Amino acid sequence: MARQLSLNAFVSGSGHHEAAWRHRDTPSDRVFDVGYYQDIARAAEGYKLDAVFFADVPGVANDTGHNISGRLEPITLLTAMALATERIGLIATASTSFYEPYNLARLFATLDHISGGRAGWNIVTTRSAAAAQNFGLENIPENEDRYERGQEFVDVITKLFDSWEDDAVINDKENGSYIDTAKVHRIDHDGKYLKVRGPLITPRPPQGRPVYVQAGASNEGRGFAARNAEAIFTAHQTLGDAQAFYDDIKKRAVDLGRDPESIKVLPGISPFIGDTEKEAIELQREFNDLTLPAYGIKQIASQASIDLSGLELDEQVPLERIAGIGDILDNRNSRQTLVAKIIERDRPTLRELLHRFAGARGHNVVAGTPIQIADIIATWFEQGAADGFNVMPPQYPIMLDTFGEKVVPILQDRGLFRTDYEGSTLRDHYGLTRPASQYAAAAV
Amino acid sequence: MARQLSLNAFVSGSGHHEAAWRHRDTPSDRVFDVGYYQDIARAAEGYKLDAVFFADVPGVANDTGHNISGRLEPITLLTAMALATERIGLIATASTSFYEPYNLARLFATLDHISGGRAGWNIVTTRSAAAAQNFGLENIPENEDRYERGQEFVDVITKLFDSWEDDAVINDKENGSYIDTAKVHRIDHDGKYLKVRGPLITPRPPQGRPVYVQAGASNEGRGFAARNAEAIFTAHQTLGDAQAFYDDIKKRAVDLGRDPESIKVLPGISPFIGDTEKEAIELQREFNDLTLPAYGIKQIASQASIDLSGLELDEQVPLERIAGIGDILDNRNSRQTLVAKIIERDRPTLRELLHRFAGARGHNVVAGTPIQIADIIATWFEQGAADGFNVMPPQYPIMLDTFGEKVVPILQDRGLFRTDYEGSTLRDHYGLTRPASQYAAAAV
Repeated sequence: MARQLSLNAFVSGSGHHEAAWRHRDTPSDRVFDVGYYQDIARAAEGYKLDAVFFADVPGVANDTGHNISGRLEPITLLTAMALATERIGLIATASTSFYEPYNLARLFATLDHISGGRAGWNIVTTRSAAAAQNFGLENIPENEDRYERGQEFVDVITKLFDSWEDDAVINDKENGSYIDTAKVHRIDHDGKYLKVRGPLITPRPPQGRPVYVQAGASNEGRGFAARNAEAIFTAHQTLGDAQAFYDDIKKRAVDLGRDPESIKVLPGISPFIGDTEKEAIELQREFNDLTLPAYGIKQIASQASIDLSGLELDEQVPLERIAGIGDILDNRNSRQTLVAKIIERDRPTLRELLHRFAGARGHNVVAGTPIQIADIIATWFEQGAADGFNVMPPQYPIMLDTFGEKVVPILQDRGLFRTDYEGSTLRDHYGLTRPASQYAAAAV
Repeated sequence: MARQLSLNAFVSGSGHHEAAWRHRDTPSDRVFDVGYYQDIARAAEGYKLDAVFFADVPGVANDTGHNISGRLEPITLLTAMALATERIGLIATASTSFYEPYNLARLFATLDHISGGRAGWNIVTTRSAAAAQNFGLENIPENEDRYERGQEFVDVITKLFDSWEDDAVINDKENGSYIDTAKVHRIDHDGKYLKVRGPLITPRPPQGRPVYVQAGASNEGRGFAARNAEAIFTAHQTLGDAQAFYDDIKKRAVDLGRDPESIKVLPGISPFIGDTEKEAIELQREFNDLTLPAYGIKQIASQASIDLSGLELDEQVPLERIAGIGDILDNRNSRQTLVAKIIERDRPTLRELLHRFAGARGHNVVAGTPIQIADIIATWFEQGAADGFNVMPPQYPIMLDTFGEKVVPILQDRGLFRTDYEGSTLRDHYGLTRPASQYAAAAV
C-alpha cells in the first residue's frame, strides 16, 4: 500500500480559534462535561483518525478571563474517552519538569492497559513560569537544564515501563507463584536529577511503552525529539519552513542510527472550511471579529514573549518589538521565532497579527474548500514536509465534523488515508514497532 | 429516619485473603482488566453500597512473587468505574509524601467532575521504604515530619480546590468573559514543605472537595484524622478496641470544634459467609490452607515490622519477638501494635498467626452465617464502635456478591441500611455537607 497519512484530532475545549467559545454555535457550556469529550472521541474514531490529543500546561498563564482558561486533567479525561471508543489513539501531554516519573509511569501504563494499547505521551519540558510557580519554583529552569532533566526522565520512565517483562505474570495457582520474580526488575537509577529504585507496580503496558511524542522546535527540542520521539507535533507557516524542519529531524534521527520512518512529523493545521473559498474566508473573518485584543496581546506575551502593549490596532507592528530574536534553532522559545518571522515577513498591523495568532497560536491556519484543504495536506505530505497532520479545528465539535465529513473522504479517495483501522493500538496506526523490554533476556 | 450504616466495598484484585488468587473459583487472570473492576463497581452499586475504595502504595514491598503484587493506578481505574456506574462513591488512596499537590488536585478534581461528585481521597502519608526509594529517598521520613508535610499538603490542596469559586465560570459570550476573574484566586502558599501559587487550572469540583478519608491509628494519625477526615478507615480485632478508638476520635473532633457526626468511623470487616457457621469456618480453613508461609512472613515483616524468621510453623511465637513494642498511641506503626497484641493476648503458633494475618492483614476476619455477620455489624454500629464498615471480601468478586445478596438484605430489613440511594454524591451518601470555598465572599 502507498504511504499513508497520519491524522490526529488535537482536541481543545471549544476549538483552537481563541474566540471560538463566543460563537453562537459553540457549546461552550459543555467544556467541563466528560460526555462532550466522549462524543468528540467517538466522532474522531468514526472518521478513522489516528488519535485524539490534548496539550497541557499545569497552570493558568492567561488570566484575563476572556477565554476558557480551565481544563480537566488530560490522563483521566482520556481514560473516559478510551471507554467510549475502541480503536482511536489517546495522547496526553505531561511535563518532565513537574511530575515524578513513578507517578506518571503508573498513570500512562494504566491508560494503556485500560485502552488496550492506545496511549501516547506528548513529552514536554514546560516553558511556563506560571506552571513553575505551582511546583515550588520561582521561574522555569534554563532550556539546557530542562532538557537534561527531560532526557533523564525519559530514560527513567522507559526503564519503569520495561521493569516488568512481558511474561512476568504467570498466575500459577498450583505452585503459588503469581509472578515470575526473575522477570520483574529493579531499575536502580541514580542520576543527576532523579533517583528511582523500581520496579513499577504496574505490569508492562500492552504497547510496551506508550507512543512517545514531542513538540519542541528549538535546537535542544530537536535533538531531544530525534533521540526519543516516535511522533513530532510541530508548527509551521510555510511549506518551505516545514520541509526544512522535516529534513532536519529525519537527518538527526538517521545520525543517531534510527530509521527515519520511525518518526512521524505532524505539523498543525487549522482549517476553516467552506463550500466556496469565499465562504471559508468569510467564516474565518466571523471568528476573528469575535476576538478581544486584550486577550490576544496577553497570549502573545505569554506564549511568544513578544511585547505588543501600547500599540494601536491598525498600527504596523514595529520591527523593534522583535529586535534580537534569534533563529529558531538558537532560540529557546521556538514560538517566539515563529511569530517574529511573521512580523518581519508580512509586516502586519497589530490587528492582523492578533488575528493570525488567534487562529491557532502560530499554527498554520488555512481557509478554503474541502478540495483546497485536501490539496494542501497532500502537497505537504508528498513534498517532504509532513507524514501527516495534527488537525486543529478552529471550532469544536462542528468543525471537526466538517473536516471528517468533507476532507477525509477526499483523502481516502486519493488513497492517502485509511478507510478503516487495520490494527488496534496507536503503534499499529502509526506503523511503529512494539519495543522489547530492555531487561528481557533476548535484549541483554 | 434512624441512623444509617455506611458500607464501602474495599476493592482488592482477587480479594483480601492473601491466598484468594489461588482459589479455583477466583478469576485471578482478570486483575489487570478494567472490565473486571467495572463489574465490581456495578455489583456494589446494585447492593446500594456507599463507595468502592482502593488502598495504594506506590512501590512493591513484598517481592516474593507469591501474590498479586502489581496493580493499576487507582484514580484512572476509578475513572473507568465511574463511567460504568451512576451513584456509588469512588475513593482512591494517594500519598501526601510522594505527590505534588497541584498534580493530585487536578486528578481528584477531574475524577469528581467526571463522576458527578462521587470522588473521595484516602489521605495517606505512606510508611513504606520501598515506596520512598521510588521517589529519591533512602527511607521514609519520621512520622512527625510525614504528618507535618501531610497537614501542609492537605491545606494546600484544599486551597487549590477552593481556588475557583463555585460560580467563577460565567460563559458570557456577549461580553467576552468566560470567567469572572474576581472569583478565581491565587493561593500564594509559601510554607515549610510546599510553595504553590495557584489557582488550580480545573474549576471547583461538584462536591467542592472530594470527601477526605484517613486511615492512620497512631497518635499523629488520630490527630490528623480528627482535624481533616470526614471518614476514617480503621482496623480493630475486638469490640472493646473499636469502641475505645471510636470514643477517642469523636472526642478529639469535638475538642477541635467539629460536629462528631461529620466523621464516619468505618472499621474493616472481612467476612467468610456460609449457610451454617460450620460451612463458613470450613470456607475460611480452605483459604488458609492455600497460604504460603514465606509470603506471610514477609507481609508481617513489611507491614507490621515484626520478624518471624527462623520459627517452626507449629511453634508458639515467642514474646521476645514483640519486646518493646509500644501502645498503639505511642507507636508509629499502628499495625505493629495490633499484631503484637494478638501475639500477646492469644499466644498463637506461627501458623496460626500467619492465618490470622492472611485474612485481611490485621483487619477483623469473621466467619459465620449471614445473620451472624449482620449481628456483628449491628452490634458494633449500635454499641459505639462504628458508623459503618469498610467491607473487605476475602475473595473477589464472589464474596462481595455473597455479602451483597445475603447480608445487606438483613441490614435493610432491620432498617439499618438504605434500600436505595437518596442523593447522587458521595457526600450525600455519607450525610456530609458540601464545604464552601474559603475564598467565597460569604466565607471571608
